[in-house]
Amino acid sequence: MKRTNFVLAILVAAILFLATATLAQAPPAPVISPEVHTDRSLTFRFRAPNDKKVAVSIEGMTKSLPMQKDDQGVWSVTTEPLAPDYYGYTIIADGVGLFDPSNHAIKPNFLYRASEVHVAGPASLSWEIGAVPHGEIHHHFYKSGVVGDDRDFYVYTPPGYDPRGKQTYPVLYLLHGFSDDASAWTAVGRANVILDNLIAQGKAKPMLVVMPLGYGAPEVLLPNSGVWRDLAITERNFNKFREALLTEVVPRVEAEYAVIKDRNSRAIAGLSMGGSESLLTGLNTLDEFAWIGAFSSGGITEAFDIEFPAVDSKSGQQLHLLWIACGSDDRLIDINRNFRAWLASKHIKHVDIETPGAHTWMVWRRNLTEFSSLLFR
Amino acid sequence: MKRTNFVLAILVAAILFLATATLAQAPPAPVISPEVHTDRSLTFRFRAPNDKKVAVSIEGMTKSLPMQKDDQGVWSVTTEPLAPDYYGYTIIADGVGLFDPSNHAIKPNFLYRASEVHVAGPASLSWEIGAVPHGEIHHHFYKSGVVGDDRDFYVYTPPGYDPRGKQTYPVLYLLHGFSDDASAWTAVGRANVILDNLIAQGKAKPMLVVMPLGYGAPEVLLPNSGVWRDLAITERNFNKFREALLTEVVPRVEAEYAVIKDRNSRAIAGLSMGGSESLLTGLNTLDEFAWIGAFSSGGITEAFDIEFPAVDSKSGQQLHLLWIACGSDDRLIDINRNFRAWLASKHIKHVDIETPGAHTWMVWRRNLTEFSSLLFR
Repeated sequence: MKRTNFVLAILVAAILFLATATLAQAPPAPVISPEVHTDRSLTFRFRAPNDKKVAVSIEGMTKSLPMQKDDQGVWSVTTEPLAPDYYGYTIIADGVGLFDPSNHAIKPNFLYRASEVHVAGPASLSWEIGAVPHGEIHHHFYKSGVVGDDRDFYVYTPPGYDPRGKQTYPVLYLLHGFSDDASAWTAVGRANVILDNLIAQGKAKPMLVVMPLGYGAPEVLLPNSGVWRDLAITERNFNKFREALLTEVVPRVEAEYAVIKDRNSRAIAGLSMGGSESLLTGLNTLDEFAWIGAFSSGGITEAFDIEFPAVDSKSGQQLHLLWIACGSDDRLIDINRNFRAWLASKHIKHVDIETPGAHTWMVWRRNLTEFSSLLFR
Repeated sequence: MKRTNFVLAILVAAILFLATATLAQAPPAPVISPEVHTDRSLTFRFRAPNDKKVAVSIEGMTKSLPMQKDDQGVWSVTTEPLAPDYYGYTIIADGVGLFDPSNHAIKPNFLYRASEVHVAGPASLSWEIGAVPHGEIHHHFYKSGVVGDDRDFYVYTPPGYDPRGKQTYPVLYLLHGFSDDASAWTAVGRANVILDNLIAQGKAKPMLVVMPLGYGAPEVLLPNSGVWRDLAITERNFNKFREALLTEVVPRVEAEYAVIKDRNSRAIAGLSMGGSESLLTGLNTLDEFAWIGAFSSGGITEAFDIEFPAVDSKSGQQLHLLWIACGSDDRLIDINRNFRAWLASKHIKHVDIETPGAHTWMVWRRNLTEFSSLLFR
């Protein structure tokens, strides 16, 4: 038989293949969502013929956008043109937050469901994949003796990193926020893309970035865990995180990777809960870290003298950089301003950053871009 | 002020923190789903007060399970006790396949939405995380000159792998199915956990596992791409995949890792589309691969003489292992049986495996367990 005679056979095989290739799903015509228009406006669509009220909540927008239903049962709304960025969003269908079923891109998160859309921008934006050498992301797994669970951490190695070479690198320990998993800084924060670009442009020193799981008490993720209102669980979460980082993650990284093993080549930074962790761990362990960044930090009390028992008027002299950032529209701006005032009262030199925006990844990608470019110089 | 006086301050900070920590979502009481009962039955729940018909489609079950609505608008259903395994499932709400919004565990996939639930089993199951040393998963990124896109691949390195050491390792190239992304074999297939366990038990040789993106023509993922019914696009998808693997991925792995660089230490295997890719690439490039596995393969025509122009009666002598598996309830069983008959007609020695089950990851985790234990001996 000639090859062209097999088109029928292919068709039959294809139907069988597709029919068995996934779970059976009822087959209304698929909707396209989100659609990114050339003017950078977005159209979101969601099929739900019987729902009474559907809206989309978009990262960085104060109010969710109501969607309108057409006669096919498809809800939709189109935004204004948006600035180039990655946007998280959640479909809210009769009060329930859903991933957009038409979009495979999701934000990994233990507690909240959000899909993600990329509004592409110019190569000058640090999170756009550039025509530059790319580093690698290594995923490590271990049983934590400190916490008692099986957990993971990620290590970004910069382009050209050679485990067999003589060059050694400084390390940034980079911490996610409450409800995130250990992949958040790469999957959502694009830390690897940002570092690839900054290093290629000579704007950041080549460095490793270590991204551990940020929970010392993983039960904070359970419903009604009491975290943020029960001092004991909140403290245990912070303290056990710090212990796991210092006694499990740092030693393993320093044994396995070609890194410089002194405080001048160790930085720690994080966002939200991870911002507080970077302050609590860094400022209370100045013999280990000389560079500290806190992005939109929250979750600690304003009893700063008690939270930071190791800090005194000489602490500032040991630090190469203490960088305190918060979105100007973040509700955590006040506690961050209060913390900066406390630092000033202790004569601890630090950098104050207020980034336009709220408690969003748009702010944190920009924070990482700026902070990482200052490190190890 | 005493520390205990700050509970109020924490409470205020906590409310602000949580209020800003994620996108605003309307707040009906959260439902628990899925709930794994002690008898290993599962209860699925989904809040949708206005939907007319909701069901859950569970991987490996022929029919979806209708759910019943309570007076709070929460749909639910409880299964029979299930065998320990990981199960994909999709909530089908008025005809639309959704992720379960109450579950953070999802199956990454370009086209289909499925959540995942773990029904835990004994340590004797290869995919259960064991008290054994764990390997690492390295995520690589590159611009493909063959295909023209930015793409990725993953490399599993076994416990004890030391890039600076003298030991070199054989490599299994392991290919995902149509609609999967490059993370599928680790995120869903638990390939790293399976190898960790088999290596610790002495059942598999320490090896690297390389998991590339399986699309030579990524446009096959677009709606109405024509793949499986248009010979040209299907062929381009297979051919460009093979070219990218052989000219981009294999050389990079062999330059960067401590691996053995000859055909006796290279295996190739895959599932579904990836099973066909392992056959098309392996059997047509016997100077590169001496071990071949195909799990539930599909997507090629039955014109085997044309699909495998390099195969002749001497091919079998060059192979250490040709392992053809398919689920006994998979609709692709017939084409796999026909392929095995064709191999027999060519006097090509191979192993026939029919695994209980359909076109599911339960079958493929078992296939990988069995196949990988046979390699490089």
